[in-house]
Amino acid sequence: MRIVILGAGNVATHLAKAMDENCGNVVQVYSHTLKNAVSLAQTLRNAKPIDDFSNVTRDADLYVISVKDDAISTVVDAIDVDAGIVVHTSGSVSVDVLNRKFEKSGVLYPLQTFSRDVAVDISAIPFFVEGCNEITSSLITDVAKRLSHRIYYADSAQRKQLHVAAVFGCNFVNYLWIQADEILKEAGYDFKILEPLILATLDKAVRVSPLKGQTGPARRGDIGIINTHKRLLTLDKATLYQMLSQCIMKKYDIDYE
Amino acid sequence: MRIVILGAGNVATHLAKAMDENCGNVVQVYSHTLKNAVSLAQTLRNAKPIDDFSNVTRDADLYVISVKDDAISTVVDAIDVDAGIVVHTSGSVSVDVLNRKFEKSGVLYPLQTFSRDVAVDISAIPFFVEGCNEITSSLITDVAKRLSHRIYYADSAQRKQLHVAAVFGCNFVNYLWIQADEILKEAGYDFKILEPLILATLDKAVRVSPLKGQTGPARRGDIGIINTHKRLLTLDKATLYQMLSQCIMKKYDIDYE
Repeated sequence: MRIVILGAGNVATHLAKAMDENCGNVVQVYSHTLKNAVSLAQTLRNAKPIDDFSNVTRDADLYVISVKDDAISTVVDAIDVDAGIVVHTSGSVSVDVLNRKFEKSGVLYPLQTFSRDVAVDISAIPFFVEGCNEITSSLITDVAKRLSHRIYYADSAQRKQLHVAAVFGCNFVNYLWIQADEILKEAGYDFKILEPLILATLDKAVRVSPLKGQTGPARRGDIGIINTHKRLLTLDKATLYQMLSQCIMKKYDIDYE
Repeated sequence: MRIVILGAGNVATHLAKAMDENCGNVVQVYSHTLKNAVSLAQTLRNAKPIDDFSNVTRDADLYVISVKDDAISTVVDAIDVDAGIVVHTSGSVSVDVLNRKFEKSGVLYPLQTFSRDVAVDISAIPFFVEGCNEITSSLITDVAKRLSHRIYYADSAQRKQLHVAAVFGCNFVNYLWIQADEILKEAGYDFKILEPLILATLDKAVRVSPLKGQTGPARRGDIGIINTHKRLLTLDKATLYQMLSQCIMKKYDIDYE
């Protein structure tokens, strides 16, 4: 299988390496910055770096568009393919943006955050596959199965839900960790001391469920502790504390007096 | 070292076993429910189960009060000790509740959530020590060091801050995981699919910092995606999404139009 990678960012970098090892030959790496294409191509077995869309080969088997969401349509407009499959890797963009031009198109969305220089175990990452039709979907699934043992199907609507869930479960969670970090720093501690407790909370959420794993003053309806905590906090943090405590008490039908 | 454990709940159970293995002999286990005292004592080498405070020996070296916060003072009133150290294990209760009666008193607070039947690696748990004076503090630290390699000092004010940080970093975080779980379920997925992404987010927060690790639509100021997501959500979830997005944009000085 001859593969073309379009993009040289974090996702493109990790996918290109994994695909070159497990799925076939990455023959070209495109980036609009040649330097980036070169440095990614160097890590692969036999890939040509290019920075001009007109040099993209027409006869590869798989084209992986892994660029910023709003640059996907630019790539679509700029390339022509004979018979290969064209996929993008975005959680938020519909497959239709590819569908309107390419016969075989789809999505290969890894639900993970990538940093260029941090190695990740691709095989443990959940990949979500969509194809413009069943045959294409199953071809993309075959590729995905060589990358990871966690392959799921997700149409564009489901991918949007996955993205929203990740915003709650990771982005918003990280914002709460910022609050915890600031409180800990003020008391002279490092955020790291919370790690074992966070891991135990996550473990319980995964093994049982977050709904059953909820603990804390709000879950117990302990208004005394809630008020003590609010007095310790700056106005912004106290407002957030109050709001989230009320959400939890509402969820579990606990009266807030 | 002769140790008396007062309480037979989750914390008492895990501490009793670890202390019996690493710190000395647990000679008595008190619970107001004899059955619970018996079943904990059975897992220890040579501990007597008791349910009557008048049977608590006066001449142990260490008394560990590990009961619900509002039951601590009841235990304090009910027991008499000759010269041993008396500690409680609560994050929210001041050492003064012991101080007023016992000569050597302190706190040994494990920052972890315990489930009775789930084994935990005690040696990785951060313990926070306080003593009523320096000598007692250093004696309690000696005991703690036999349990874990993560021993910190925390006075009552610091312990309160630790507790607030844990509410943000674990209890409130778990509530957001409930939201993610519900969204995923609706789309046909299990909460488990988010685990790799959450672990990567936590890893970045611990290795770098949550402030630097923040990603997502709000961090990018991507109002388009924020509005799309809000339309996908129920009113309660959309309100929470909006509020947390605004917090993040405020934190990073991003204009919300």
